[in-house]
Amino acid sequence: MSRQEWLAEFAGTATLLMIVVGSGIMGEQLAHGNAAIALLANSLATGAGLYVLITLLGPISGAHFNPLVSLMMWWRGESSSVQLFAYIAAQITGAIIGVWLVHVMFDLPMLQVGIKPRAGAGQWLSEIIATTGLLVTILLGLRARADAIPALVGSYIMAAYWFTASTSFANPAVTIARALTTTFAGIRPADVPGFIAAQLVATALVLMAARWLRPSVANTA
Amino acid sequence: MSRQEWLAEFAGTATLLMIVVGSGIMGEQLAHGNAAIALLANSLATGAGLYVLITLLGPISGAHFNPLVSLMMWWRGESSSVQLFAYIAAQITGAIIGVWLVHVMFDLPMLQVGIKPRAGAGQWLSEIIATTGLLVTILLGLRARADAIPALVGSYIMAAYWFTASTSFANPAVTIARALTTTFAGIRPADVPGFIAAQLVATALVLMAARWLRPSVANTA
Amino acid sequence: MSRQEWLAEFAGTATLLMIVVGSGIMGEQLAHGNAAIALLANSLATGAGLYVLITLLGPISGAHFNPLVSLMMWWRGESSSVQLFAYIAAQITGAIIGVWLVHVMFDLPMLQVGIKPRAGAGQWLSEIIATTGLLVTILLGLRARADAIPALVGSYIMAAYWFTASTSFANPAVTIARALTTTFAGIRPADVPGFIAAQLVATALVLMAARWLRPSVANTA
Amino acid sequence: MSRQEWLAEFAGTATLLMIVVGSGIMGEQLAHGNAAIALLANSLATGAGLYVLITLLGPISGAHFNPLVSLMMWWRGESSSVQLFAYIAAQITGAIIGVWLVHVMFDLPMLQVGIKPRAGAGQWLSEIIATTGLLVTILLGLRARADAIPALVGSYIMAAYWFTASTSFANPAVTIARALTTTFAGIRPADVPGFIAAQLVATALVLMAARWLRPSVANTA
Repeated sequence: MSRQEWLAEFAGTATLLMIVVGSGIMGEQLAHGNAAIALLANSLATGAGLYVLITLLGPISGAHFNPLVSLMMWWRGESSSVQLFAYIAAQITGAIIGVWLVHVMFDLPMLQVGIKPRAGAGQWLSEIIATTGLLVTILLGLRARADAIPALVGSYIMAAYWFTASTSFANPAVTIARALTTTFAGIRPADVPGFIAAQLVATALVLMAARWLRPSVANTA
Repeated sequence: MSRQEWLAEFAGTATLLMIVVGSGIMGEQLAHGNAAIALLANSLATGAGLYVLITLLGPISGAHFNPLVSLMMWWRGESSSVQLFAYIAAQITGAIIGVWLVHVMFDLPMLQVGIKPRAGAGQWLSEIIATTGLLVTILLGLRARADAIPALVGSYIMAAYWFTASTSFANPAVTIARALTTTFAGIRPADVPGFIAAQLVATALVLMAARWLRPSVANTA
Repeated sequence: MSRQEWLAEFAGTATLLMIVVGSGIMGEQLAHGNAAIALLANSLATGAGLYVLITLLGPISGAHFNPLVSLMMWWRGESSSVQLFAYIAAQITGAIIGVWLVHVMFDLPMLQVGIKPRAGAGQWLSEIIATTGLLVTILLGLRARADAIPALVGSYIMAAYWFTASTSFANPAVTIARALTTTFAGIRPADVPGFIAAQLVATALVLMAARWLRPSVANTA
Repeated sequence: MSRQEWLAEFAGTATLLMIVVGSGIMGEQLAHGNAAIALLANSLATGAGLYVLITLLGPISGAHFNPLVSLMMWWRGESSSVQLFAYIAAQITGAIIGVWLVHVMFDLPMLQVGIKPRAGAGQWLSEIIATTGLLVTILLGLRARADAIPALVGSYIMAAYWFTASTSFANPAVTIARALTTTFAGIRPADVPGFIAAQLVATALVLMAARWLRPSVANTA
């Protein structure tokens, strides 16, 4: 894996977390407790940011920013095991650095621990549905209109913030990093394993379904 | 009709209903009774979601997600009667499953009945205008710029949520499924037949107008 | 001028006014007096609606929906005087019908008269700037990226609702029709002439500047 | 440098400032102190406006509207020193005229002085990150998808308003001009040098990194 690929995954995931956590802080501070306006800002900023980041970094590293996407690409034989681990390391490191940078920008303590409880059947089902949707968007998007992937992923996540009860984490690196902030986008560390388990269940489901669907989907291409 | 076509209509309509009903629940819960912010979230999430769903599933099933669109395509001779009925069954089943999944995600009782009254001349005129606009958007969009259909339908519905008094159901499968939720996007079952009748009137009007307009519109192509 | 051209200008302008006035009514009713949320809905719905209407009807009539655009096209020698008057008649008639349809949809009295005062130097300067911006967007957009005109005009108007003190009418047909509603988007009839005068001043300025700029702008094409 | 290039930089930057400052005033006046709604309007209007301005004026002047972008282009050998100074003069003059025009539109005193304190380590780090992101968006965007630069820059700034603590000035001409308004988008004149210094630091970092990254990024093109 080249230096540029690693840097693209690291910086892209760091910027993604700055957007997710930073827009949540700004929204919460300005909206005086109206969480709907904060989530509106949060979801629009994240959607727009993903469109930019994937367009810019897609040609360099594939713009995964998500261990599950790297896992799916490895499963499809598009990367080696070494690359898979290097990508995941870049993503998790980048995500954590992104959260810390945001805390410094907003004059908050750099090291924090999440306090927002996010658990229970509804939350876990939400993460299964959110992750399934994200991976299917990427898989079908690559076949239907690969050049629209940045807009598709940005639009999907914008909508998924609103239609799932968990606001769609759908990404283990993001989940881990969001356990390091007490602000709007945070999550209690104790709830991280449940979220990641749900995300892995969804990934397994998508990989099984992809094998079942592939032949005839290919026919329509 | 292939397994993939049926699945695309089923899963696409289920996801559409998850977005419509889910973003309404999230908006209502967070906005503390400010329905304008809830509808803003609801309309932006639905517009973004339709853009994604139609881009992904259009190449597989045509991405109708709406019995009236399937009816219009059948009328134009683009599908058989068997396919028409199979599509409508997939859409209605998918829509209902989507509403139930959302209820489970948000820890609400799965089985609910709509309580929001939506009737009267203004509401029915709204559904006639909303449905006419949707079908015309698809018909003219296919001629003017077929690759922009996902963005056109998403943008149209985003606007139509706001400019019609009924918030634009414009879809019998969606109407039936929204009678199964008491939340923001719900409708009283007694008001479903009026809505569907208005939607059918609009479909008849568009099909008649399409015949009258077709020759010279074709000239401009 | 063909039947289809006339119908496209009539129906397009009617739909534009339904969007402008209807989303204002919906926003005002739901936002409990928070005019910023109402204008946010109003501007997003109008921007999205313009993108759809211009994409669909551009290939048929040019999608002017605005007497000043028709005047500019006539000045450039792209249409006859007869066509100019027919377009303007279609636009004004359509705009008025659009407002009336919205009133019926929202169960309001069909015939209303605007009561919102919109006058003074700041308002007139706003209309001069708003109209100049709209016409320049169309002129330069046709040279820079003609296929993006629908997105450019929609995005421009979305922004102009916010950055001008008049919320950017920039269209005499729209101005006349908005004098026929007491709701959010209305204007006092006594203030219509001032707005239209300002819009005509801007049109004259743009046509003079276009002549001065044309040679070298053409060089960059 | 041609008359058209100078005029494009002047008018483009003036319009950008009208959008930034004007939408802030409108948002503040209508939102009754809910700054989150004001910033939502502000960020959406600025993003949409940048998309329009860069599309229209890119083919004429490159649509810099920002001394740092002109500096970066001069550094890459794409313009002469004379052109650099002429562009910067056009940008600063245009920015100031834009703010004054907005004040007149909104019936406010034309000459004002900013009162909003924006200083401290968090603010300066925000400007370094915001400016780095903007310049990287342009550099990588030109390689990855040059025709999408208008949408990329508009989307980036929309997100950056929310995820940085400074709301992303990222532009010395904009910073100077925003010291001339007491309204929503203003800045205290005493805080201007700190912002511009942070922006220059980011520019230096990006130019150094670009040299380091260029060879292998080029490989991926």
